[in-house]
Amino acid sequence: MSTYFSNVPPIAYEGPTSDNPLSFKWYDKNRIVLGKRMEEQLRFAVCYWHSFCWNGLDPFGGDTFQRPWQHMADPMAAAKAKADVAFEFFSKLGAPYYCFHDRDVAPEGATPRESVNNFREMVDVLAGKQEAMGKKLLWGTANLFSHRRFMGGASTNPDPKIFALAALQVKEAMDATLKLGGANYVLWGGREGYETLLNTRIGHELDQMGRFLNMVVEYKHKIGFKGTILLEPKPREPSKHQYDFDSATVYGFLCRYGLEKEIKVNIEANHATLAGHSFEHEIATAVDLGIFGSIDMNRGDMQCAWDTDQFPNSIPETALAMYTIMQGGGFVNGGVNFDAKVRRQSIDPEDMFHGHIGGMDVTARALLIAEKMITDGKLAKLVDDRYAGWNTPFAQSMLDGKMGLDAVAAHVLGHNTDTQPVSGRQEHLENLLNSYI
Amino acid sequence: MSTYFSNVPPIAYEGPTSDNPLSFKWYDKNRIVLGKRMEEQLRFAVCYWHSFCWNGLDPFGGDTFQRPWQHMADPMAAAKAKADVAFEFFSKLGAPYYCFHDRDVAPEGATPRESVNNFREMVDVLAGKQEAMGKKLLWGTANLFSHRRFMGGASTNPDPKIFALAALQVKEAMDATLKLGGANYVLWGGREGYETLLNTRIGHELDQMGRFLNMVVEYKHKIGFKGTILLEPKPREPSKHQYDFDSATVYGFLCRYGLEKEIKVNIEANHATLAGHSFEHEIATAVDLGIFGSIDMNRGDMQCAWDTDQFPNSIPETALAMYTIMQGGGFVNGGVNFDAKVRRQSIDPEDMFHGHIGGMDVTARALLIAEKMITDGKLAKLVDDRYAGWNTPFAQSMLDGKMGLDAVAAHVLGHNTDTQPVSGRQEHLENLLNSYI
Amino acid sequence: MSTYFSNVPPIAYEGPTSDNPLSFKWYDKNRIVLGKRMEEQLRFAVCYWHSFCWNGLDPFGGDTFQRPWQHMADPMAAAKAKADVAFEFFSKLGAPYYCFHDRDVAPEGATPRESVNNFREMVDVLAGKQEAMGKKLLWGTANLFSHRRFMGGASTNPDPKIFALAALQVKEAMDATLKLGGANYVLWGGREGYETLLNTRIGHELDQMGRFLNMVVEYKHKIGFKGTILLEPKPREPSKHQYDFDSATVYGFLCRYGLEKEIKVNIEANHATLAGHSFEHEIATAVDLGIFGSIDMNRGDMQCAWDTDQFPNSIPETALAMYTIMQGGGFVNGGVNFDAKVRRQSIDPEDMFHGHIGGMDVTARALLIAEKMITDGKLAKLVDDRYAGWNTPFAQSMLDGKMGLDAVAAHVLGHNTDTQPVSGRQEHLENLLNSYI
Amino acid sequence: MSTYFSNVPPIAYEGPTSDNPLSFKWYDKNRIVLGKRMEEQLRFAVCYWHSFCWNGLDPFGGDTFQRPWQHMADPMAAAKAKADVAFEFFSKLGAPYYCFHDRDVAPEGATPRESVNNFREMVDVLAGKQEAMGKKLLWGTANLFSHRRFMGGASTNPDPKIFALAALQVKEAMDATLKLGGANYVLWGGREGYETLLNTRIGHELDQMGRFLNMVVEYKHKIGFKGTILLEPKPREPSKHQYDFDSATVYGFLCRYGLEKEIKVNIEANHATLAGHSFEHEIATAVDLGIFGSIDMNRGDMQCAWDTDQFPNSIPETALAMYTIMQGGGFVNGGVNFDAKVRRQSIDPEDMFHGHIGGMDVTARALLIAEKMITDGKLAKLVDDRYAGWNTPFAQSMLDGKMGLDAVAAHVLGHNTDTQPVSGRQEHLENLLNSYI
Repeated sequence: MSTYFSNVPPIAYEGPTSDNPLSFKWYDKNRIVLGKRMEEQLRFAVCYWHSFCWNGLDPFGGDTFQRPWQHMADPMAAAKAKADVAFEFFSKLGAPYYCFHDRDVAPEGATPRESVNNFREMVDVLAGKQEAMGKKLLWGTANLFSHRRFMGGASTNPDPKIFALAALQVKEAMDATLKLGGANYVLWGGREGYETLLNTRIGHELDQMGRFLNMVVEYKHKIGFKGTILLEPKPREPSKHQYDFDSATVYGFLCRYGLEKEIKVNIEANHATLAGHSFEHEIATAVDLGIFGSIDMNRGDMQCAWDTDQFPNSIPETALAMYTIMQGGGFVNGGVNFDAKVRRQSIDPEDMFHGHIGGMDVTARALLIAEKMITDGKLAKLVDDRYAGWNTPFAQSMLDGKMGLDAVAAHVLGHNTDTQPVSGRQEHLENLLNSYI
Repeated sequence: MSTYFSNVPPIAYEGPTSDNPLSFKWYDKNRIVLGKRMEEQLRFAVCYWHSFCWNGLDPFGGDTFQRPWQHMADPMAAAKAKADVAFEFFSKLGAPYYCFHDRDVAPEGATPRESVNNFREMVDVLAGKQEAMGKKLLWGTANLFSHRRFMGGASTNPDPKIFALAALQVKEAMDATLKLGGANYVLWGGREGYETLLNTRIGHELDQMGRFLNMVVEYKHKIGFKGTILLEPKPREPSKHQYDFDSATVYGFLCRYGLEKEIKVNIEANHATLAGHSFEHEIATAVDLGIFGSIDMNRGDMQCAWDTDQFPNSIPETALAMYTIMQGGGFVNGGVNFDAKVRRQSIDPEDMFHGHIGGMDVTARALLIAEKMITDGKLAKLVDDRYAGWNTPFAQSMLDGKMGLDAVAAHVLGHNTDTQPVSGRQEHLENLLNSYI
Repeated sequence: MSTYFSNVPPIAYEGPTSDNPLSFKWYDKNRIVLGKRMEEQLRFAVCYWHSFCWNGLDPFGGDTFQRPWQHMADPMAAAKAKADVAFEFFSKLGAPYYCFHDRDVAPEGATPRESVNNFREMVDVLAGKQEAMGKKLLWGTANLFSHRRFMGGASTNPDPKIFALAALQVKEAMDATLKLGGANYVLWGGREGYETLLNTRIGHELDQMGRFLNMVVEYKHKIGFKGTILLEPKPREPSKHQYDFDSATVYGFLCRYGLEKEIKVNIEANHATLAGHSFEHEIATAVDLGIFGSIDMNRGDMQCAWDTDQFPNSIPETALAMYTIMQGGGFVNGGVNFDAKVRRQSIDPEDMFHGHIGGMDVTARALLIAEKMITDGKLAKLVDDRYAGWNTPFAQSMLDGKMGLDAVAAHVLGHNTDTQPVSGRQEHLENLLNSYI
Repeated sequence: MSTYFSNVPPIAYEGPTSDNPLSFKWYDKNRIVLGKRMEEQLRFAVCYWHSFCWNGLDPFGGDTFQRPWQHMADPMAAAKAKADVAFEFFSKLGAPYYCFHDRDVAPEGATPRESVNNFREMVDVLAGKQEAMGKKLLWGTANLFSHRRFMGGASTNPDPKIFALAALQVKEAMDATLKLGGANYVLWGGREGYETLLNTRIGHELDQMGRFLNMVVEYKHKIGFKGTILLEPKPREPSKHQYDFDSATVYGFLCRYGLEKEIKVNIEANHATLAGHSFEHEIATAVDLGIFGSIDMNRGDMQCAWDTDQFPNSIPETALAMYTIMQGGGFVNGGVNFDAKVRRQSIDPEDMFHGHIGGMDVTARALLIAEKMITDGKLAKLVDDRYAGWNTPFAQSMLDGKMGLDAVAAHVLGHNTDTQPVSGRQEHLENLLNSYI
């Protein structure tokens, strides 16, 4: 049993007035919010990669964290030590879920077979720990971007052998996710894109990716996995351009390859802003398109246009995201994952707790604000009123296809139609929003 | 007959060594390039709005150009004077096409009927001038964003009366485009989007827009318009978010509303970069999706993240765009429009010629570079070689659906597949590109 | 006496639980915060230009507001009607200050003399209204960017006659500011920059601007103006590049022309983010450089990289700004101006109140948060501790110049110095910050 | 003698028509351009770090290059093997200069003394190779950002011991640069900035940095180093904010700490665009401020807002940079360094040659274009004409301080001055520029 965090007690809810930085001020897991326990509404997950695999490296410098399990000689022993620490952390923090890539939990072997064996052995370890600690898997995924073989993409690689190697990894990761009771399976296309159009056939690569995802969906049904398959949009980085640019782009891709009923999206706040959108825009778009699945609740830094993967800390921004999600019906299989890392200078083990506590608290507080907004209903009423004109028979006959362009034009000329525009009331609405905070 | 440009002689081709700034150095309209006369390959168009309607105004200051026809008291007389100047310009410049919005050529009236009458009267004037001067219409469109009634959108307005008024304008503009022999009809959704999600129902607005565009397509077939219907993607400005964000987003929208066989895109370089893409990316994407239609060949300023609508001047960037277009088969109904304006300080009438000459010359030069690249074939060969592995039976069986995820995985394990990654050769390819310039 | 806002009662403080959108929830002007009445700490100002001169125009569409005084035939009568409305607004809103450009309050005449006369006449009108209504001028300024003569800059124009015309305007605007008891005089260099380096001599233009500002400072002393001269940094827009890019750039410019003791900065949140900084960064930098003067508390939209001039609404971001200002000693002559405009669709007269109430409330709330942070002192203590090592004699001897590079190097080798890095504790600090909100 | 590049012959000038990708098309080192041999005008340098130390790692994946010397067990043997390869490359490529950080060429030791010893031993190795191969050092520098001790900055670290350790490294690197005949000494402040203002005292850190740089300048004079001390501006990355944001910011900093006569800047194209500027803007600004020193001629990707460090390939952009440099008098101690790396997928040893050949050729071609522009003089003449008005006595009396604001104002009123603005002619100038390409 790991004692890496021995200085940190289990984190408890102590309320907003507590002075204890190692307590929850807002995340009160059993409090009923919008008809469910907070824990069930939010379905918090800790990510394995940033928390236990990253060593603080950035493009300009190396390991700052010096985690002991990252300096062990035997890879499988290191993997097991890491799993011990991870579950110690999950347990003390009190988040119900976690997420992982295959290579986070088990080392790459010298051959495909050895990699598979390593992974399967570690999946059994994880299964045992889940059972022992009462933890669950929000989603599994395969790392198809770190190994050099994937430098030019996985399913979109010009080399079909790499496509095949990716298929093996995904098949195994899906088997693992099923075995561990995962609620979703995620595919993030970090190198599914291009560095330069000069060497790229976009059409061929998209066809490859379309086929790959159809294979994933077929296999899901074959093995009886009941969770949701999720794509994770991101516009760029590491690639110059990534095919899963944003939710609207993913929707078009899914339609093209017949997948729009089978695959949803895992939306990350940081990826939304990199694509030129707000987080709530991406959520609202996915909800409208019927492909909203799950979120990675980690923000970027608006002064730094790359993926900083920071824990959320803006109360109003997180409130807007939670309001949009809750209005869309809340999570089904999805949940709130933190694809977040403590800053490179946050080298103390305790810093990992500060990061997650802050993220969970701001999200819980955001949920409580969303509850007030929904219960009160003022905002929704103002929006309903704005569109009320569309309930008239004339408006409906335009929308439902009964009137064509010329009929509408004739109507306008015949009635000498004119209309005064109505205030959009943005400032009023923004003030109203702040009144809930 | 207008004499606004009396100091400017008709612009002639004088070749690259000419010292005359009012001559073409590269645009030699009868030169055969890739099987067609340059004029036919490029199908250059001058835009009416920036060239003859804009007065130099920006958000921080007013009219700098002081065009006489913009200071006349009678709106219809002003519209006719403007048409005179416009056709004087088209004629002296020697571009075969032009483009316009309804409100560019005829003033808004006090009632819908008066606006329609003004417009129809001016369409007859334009028809006469086209005939007299031998000019053609590349595309027509309706201005659905300048009048205050459209401040909250046209087809996506919360008020169905505004939807109806937009329908009238589009119907009339389509009739005019048909009458004037226009090769395309364009819809740019400048305010089809939102300022704040707080007052917006994305889903309702998209359904409105989907219906509106279906009305447009139905009407096109009803009146027998044989041109192409084009949407023009732009991510933002004037709206905070515009629904036609980029080509991939438009494709998803078209699929959702059953329009992907009926509508293509008019891609603008400046809009591409505002969306976080390169111009050639947007072209390549549209070509691959089968929705490439036409282009607005005007660049932005990479230090200014708004729509600067500048004439293109980068030889290598324009060359990449032309190479991508020509590889995609070139233009059918589309062409090269300059949705470009001379800078606010370029107040001399001659400056309008410098802008268009520069834009046409850099595009013509780009076409000649593209011709060399295509004729030579080296670049295409390197790309073909990169994907050659997909021609093997195993690769094909993965792509065509014969092998599922588990079969591929079993194959990899059975064959102990591994592979060495291959250089992407980006620097080599970039050097090769420069060798054509 | 204007009755444009007759539907709006004077705005009163009603506290956070009030349901009345036309009341202050947080701005309680007589409440003592950090030793002063809130009104004295914040020194709120309403700007004349966006509020009473702008008509809703943007680059893609015209007048949406249809303010009556903007459609009057006689310019001076219109100016007086506008002043009536402005002071009606100031009075009902309850902000103690306002700000204006010369051309906001009086029309440009046909000759320099006529412009001067118009302006002087309106200054008398304003003086009377200030007296009658108990309002004060936070700062005056001259509009050196809207008229077409300034299209290529004012003090940096290639034409010295335009420099001279700008000098006249500034002289008159300084006289007016003195007469009206203004607390500061501001210069914003909107077109003091360039569109293209191809036609620009940076060095000559900076020398022109350096001389111009020295003339301003000399004149200030000559007339006995006791207020502060302020430059307003902005990186771009309308110019491609503006010389007053940000606070650090302005500081270098002031040093070069011997002005660093005479001129301070007026920092705008929106300009800070356009320059790639946070608002609090610009404030902290100016405080450190000894040039912090005043603020324009209006935000941009992080998805739109141009000047949106929106009222602030982010509680945490505004809190950080107020904390930084209050830690720096608060305002002396400066204050909180809203260089903000209601959205183009906010066409109701009441919307102007919603905008200002929201801005004042979020700023007042931010001040109360800053008070808690400062009174509590936890954050400052953590920062002090972080730098405590510099109090040792060895550290001091490095800082004060006693030890040179080689002596320090020898010391390190001699003592075999090494040290363990210490956590930056960012997440802990961010959580602490949220505990005050 | 290394044979890593045994497949690559020495690179020779073969002219623009050569089909050989491993030849220079434009870099003809002995050709006289603007009065000097091309080699002397351009002073090309290869950087040690990206070329020989980087392994292809990015934040999402590891080593793709698998350079043999990076996998050797003995650090000093590896350093020597690396030096062999580096000089093999320098020699075959034919660039006259190189640049390095201390830790690029010698491994960090277990103690400060050991690090110093490693470095001094390798400096002797480099000296021998320089002599043997006829290569020179453009500049040396110390890596003060990769080791975890520098995670919170070097000279700006809150811990004075780290300041002292940085002092030791810089002292040694300056000694080495002197010994190796380096033409400049560079300091890049990659972590001299902050991640969050919440834990930062900007003023204290800037005072630390000001003192540190004064120590550097004092030591330079003490040891008789005749080269130039250079700071390298960059706005952010790895830090959220870096103090040396851009050239204008550095200038203000130098003035504040009395260093503006002692220190110049090394300007990188990629850093310029990250700061929101063009490369030529940063050069022109530094030239005007009298602090232009040297350049890092590596571009970014305008779609990716982080440091991509790509070889230059845009002919017009590079031409503008070279024109600005040559107009400013060209290089004195400075030169053209490529702080550039081949793409992560460019894994073949030959790719390093393609990258450098492309960069050198595009720069040489740019120099030839600049020569035409300068020799021809048309552009400069147009700019001179634009400012000609400042040669009048009235204009001079405003500039030289003889006339104050009120005297100028009186003059304007007395003369009823007015003036018509003159066209900025941007499109004409841009066309002219293209005529040289």
